[in-house]
Amino acid sequence: MTETDLLASARNADVRALARVLTHIENRTPEGRDLFSVLFSESGRAWITGVTGAPGTGKSTLVSELIPRLVGAGRLAVVAVDPSSPFSGGAILGDRIRMGSLAGDDRVYIRSLANRGALGGISETTPPIVSALDGLGFDEVIVETVGVGQSEVEVATTTDTTVVVVSPGWGDAIQVSKAGFLEIADVLVVNKADRQGADAAVRDLEAMVAMGPDTGWTPPVVVTTATDGTGVDALVAAIEQHRVYLSESGERVRRRRLAAARQLAAAVRLEAEAAGDTPDLDDLVAKVTKRQLDPWSAAAALLGKN
Amino acid sequence: MTETDLLASARNADVRALARVLTHIENRTPEGRDLFSVLFSESGRAWITGVTGAPGTGKSTLVSELIPRLVGAGRLAVVAVDPSSPFSGGAILGDRIRMGSLAGDDRVYIRSLANRGALGGISETTPPIVSALDGLGFDEVIVETVGVGQSEVEVATTTDTTVVVVSPGWGDAIQVSKAGFLEIADVLVVNKADRQGADAAVRDLEAMVAMGPDTGWTPPVVVTTATDGTGVDALVAAIEQHRVYLSESGERVRRRRLAAARQLAAAVRLEAEAAGDTPDLDDLVAKVTKRQLDPWSAAAALLGKN
Repeated sequence: MTETDLLASARNADVRALARVLTHIENRTPEGRDLFSVLFSESGRAWITGVTGAPGTGKSTLVSELIPRLVGAGRLAVVAVDPSSPFSGGAILGDRIRMGSLAGDDRVYIRSLANRGALGGISETTPPIVSALDGLGFDEVIVETVGVGQSEVEVATTTDTTVVVVSPGWGDAIQVSKAGFLEIADVLVVNKADRQGADAAVRDLEAMVAMGPDTGWTPPVVVTTATDGTGVDALVAAIEQHRVYLSESGERVRRRRLAAARQLAAAVRLEAEAAGDTPDLDDLVAKVTKRQLDPWSAAAALLGKN
Repeated sequence: MTETDLLASARNADVRALARVLTHIENRTPEGRDLFSVLFSESGRAWITGVTGAPGTGKSTLVSELIPRLVGAGRLAVVAVDPSSPFSGGAILGDRIRMGSLAGDDRVYIRSLANRGALGGISETTPPIVSALDGLGFDEVIVETVGVGQSEVEVATTTDTTVVVVSPGWGDAIQVSKAGFLEIADVLVVNKADRQGADAAVRDLEAMVAMGPDTGWTPPVVVTTATDGTGVDALVAAIEQHRVYLSESGERVRRRRLAAARQLAAAVRLEAEAAGDTPDLDDLVAKVTKRQLDPWSAAAALLGKN
């Protein structure tokens, strides 16, 4: 099958063609580079929603509740970079059954990414996959990541709206991740609202939000019980309000520039690590390795600065 | 004070001069760039040990036990990038007292790094600080990071030996972090060996190690009770065995090349994000933002590939 035929099939919701396109891109094969180049040029239309949270917060169940509400009249893709996610095959029984109800819906496509592929971590592999799905015509992309850490911060730079999910009793994790936490959350969710401690979690989060920087957007704290769908409509409303904010404030453009810068730098990094077919770069890396040149000066030389 | 005087004072264990040098480098001020350039050229001599583990595993106590054993006849620096570490001021009382015993020892210097600085995350700020301490003549540098996640993987690429600390009952975390876990551990520690479940944790880890790739080095599993020093000598012996392996196998050179590549790429990334004084790069980022060029092709253009 030619690349053109493959792309046509993938656009036509042929699941096998879709999987082949994404695998080529994930592995950066020569075909993958061509396909990515075409798809990237057609991307920029989809709304990208990140959903992140520690294991056990019920974010996968929440995602499964978001899917039918966000898909609307269009097409929706889920990119699961959480190895414990039911979307990645790590399901508990209840989740599997829930996911099963989506199986026959060809408006919904689910792609699982390994936490650590052959070529870089999720911060290198996720953004191109998301852009490819965007270029393939998906109107909505949900990116599910586990934990709140630097990799989530990375992934958050490729999403429009980042939803951070916590569950009651998550206090320790708040302590640990405080530093990067508010920075990435556009919408906060206290899930498992039927459990003890939910009110305290909401108060904690609202207090943290109040102490955060004034950026023109105050992350709302939404209370949900994903297992029975309670509060999910309010979450969708919060996501949509954030989209309006992104568009009207110009923040979407700023974020997309940052995402572009980071994707470019990630590609430079893969080339620098690989060595072999970028002589100028390889020479600079060799000089840094031998301490003949420091990394900052090497970058300046590479970029024609100085 | 001139940069030369500042450096001379810092080399002379003047704590205020040391702090000023590192702050300049952390903030990438013009002085910081000069200082880093000098110090990087003189780096490459220190042994760098990373200590990482989830909160509550007692790794800070373990670090405080490692300090007197590793400092030997030389000088030792601790870089704490864990916001909950007592080295970063997040101490519980017992830890503070323990740290206090080091306060009068001018062979030991402790530097705390914010989890997320103004300029990038810990994966951008930690390596230059470590190289600077190396260039300043510290013989040993211990880098303490929290959690096991992508940022730890990043930091691990700048250390010679990575010690991953777990405590009994850590089962869930193993599940979650399996993907990146064995990849970074050169030495595994089950701390709090007096607690229930220690034997099971050792068995789990040994089983995981046995399933890992055959790389010429099998991470040993060391059992410690840091609060009374039990097992810490065995840990030091394991670290030293790993150093012998690094030197004899050529792995140290390979790791240092990778670290050089990543530091160079991190510098490119900061320039790409900042925009302003690298016109060629800024132009490429603008094209990627407008979807006129995909990030991989932009990187290839920047690197003179194609």
